[in-house]
Amino acid sequence: MVVAIIGTGLIGGSMALTLKQMGFADKVIGVDSSETHLQKALKLGIIDETGDPLDADLIILAIPVDAGAQKLQQLLDNATTQTIMDVGSTKGGILTIAQAHPNRARFVATHPMWGTEFSGPEAAEYGGFRGRAAVICDREDSAPDALDLVEKVYDALEMRKVYMDGQSHDMHAAYVSHISHITSFALANTVLEKEREEDAIFTLASGGFESTVRLAKSNPSMWVPIFRENRENVLDVLNEHITQLRKFKSCLEKENYTYLQELIEQAGEIRRVLNK
Amino acid sequence: MVVAIIGTGLIGGSMALTLKQMGFADKVIGVDSSETHLQKALKLGIIDETGDPLDADLIILAIPVDAGAQKLQQLLDNATTQTIMDVGSTKGGILTIAQAHPNRARFVATHPMWGTEFSGPEAAEYGGFRGRAAVICDREDSAPDALDLVEKVYDALEMRKVYMDGQSHDMHAAYVSHISHITSFALANTVLEKEREEDAIFTLASGGFESTVRLAKSNPSMWVPIFRENRENVLDVLNEHITQLRKFKSCLEKENYTYLQELIEQAGEIRRVLNK
Repeated sequence: MVVAIIGTGLIGGSMALTLKQMGFADKVIGVDSSETHLQKALKLGIIDETGDPLDADLIILAIPVDAGAQKLQQLLDNATTQTIMDVGSTKGGILTIAQAHPNRARFVATHPMWGTEFSGPEAAEYGGFRGRAAVICDREDSAPDALDLVEKVYDALEMRKVYMDGQSHDMHAAYVSHISHITSFALANTVLEKEREEDAIFTLASGGFESTVRLAKSNPSMWVPIFRENRENVLDVLNEHITQLRKFKSCLEKENYTYLQELIEQAGEIRRVLNK
Repeated sequence: MVVAIIGTGLIGGSMALTLKQMGFADKVIGVDSSETHLQKALKLGIIDETGDPLDADLIILAIPVDAGAQKLQQLLDNATTQTIMDVGSTKGGILTIAQAHPNRARFVATHPMWGTEFSGPEAAEYGGFRGRAAVICDREDSAPDALDLVEKVYDALEMRKVYMDGQSHDMHAAYVSHISHITSFALANTVLEKEREEDAIFTLASGGFESTVRLAKSNPSMWVPIFRENRENVLDVLNEHITQLRKFKSCLEKENYTYLQELIEQAGEIRRVLNK
């Protein structure tokens, strides 16, 4: 099986590495708008060669969501028997383009729920996806052979397959992923703004701070298109988040520690949801 | 050296375990308001016996900050040659009590910057503190032998000793620790409020979400007294945090993606501060 990776960064790179090591991909063709990334991906053994993605049986789109949607259009224009899948964090835009295309059935919309705050080919790691959820959207619109191939990809990555429509995906992704990133970005900006003594941050930062602010290191060119595309859902959750923070503020202002205790106890309920 | 631990939970328990294993403590006396915790601590080998903390050479106060300040008063009333240290996340309250006491010099105010989201004796772990900062406050007010002993404790825990006055500590702690907890509590409440389909959170939650929301599992009875005592600093940082989140909201509402990109790039600066 020949696999093409469009975008040789964290996600595309990690998929290529894992699919090769699992024996799923015999050859990986790499495509990247950055020549530096391509060369690094070759050197790191993430890809075997550069070339035309349409020479592959399976094409994995692993570039920012806006660029991915545009690229899909071109690929579908020329696709015959190839299967094309994306791995983007939003599904709205790419599904709109796919829906309108006569070759729609060659495309499978997916989102593997894994990543780190790092980016580029050096960030690629083997086995990162294991045990996480792989969301497959609107599967009924994909050709049975294309869907079957993509399901085998996620089996090889040892992910749990979850099926939902694109709209539900984007709403859930706003809750369980996109808002965490905004929180982290805003927290980093808060501390950088308030804490003029950078040495103090460096000296005192505990594991708790590091874990909460970790996502703030994420790649802006990936996240701006995600927020743009999932704007309504993200605004909805962000408004709720500001409301929740205002409750903490009000408790402190009014010295209502009984309610503060309740808010914290309520937050602890997340334990039940995460561990069940 | 006989060490007494008042509070056999995460922090007290981890200190006892590590100090015993490092050969620093020959015997650990445990005190806890919960008989269940005391029995667990005995069973887990965290403490060797229960008894009077004043029988120890070193008394470690590892209970919520409000209870710790009250307990210090009683201990100082009866202390002669013993050294008493606390490990609380705020210093304002306990230092006010210490300052007014004739035995002030027997007390060393400290804050080891380590913890996890878990609590109780079962959460205690060996070696957790390693490499983190241990803040020692207002050292000039402690007797030289008391200060020396506490410095040896933090050397045994392999922590980096950092010295500052209590007021600066409370301000910095609000930035690098307390606000992260509020963010995490509020994020958990946001998701629990918005995401009615708990199964979706469970199924889709990625590592990013888990790391941002991790601190929401923290113990309310520890955190309410911290926020209460550090109210002004926490309110100050919380106001800034809400302002920062509103910037993201405004970018999305006005579809100003250039500024959104700038905000995210700015947040990435935290990388420089954390890694230097």
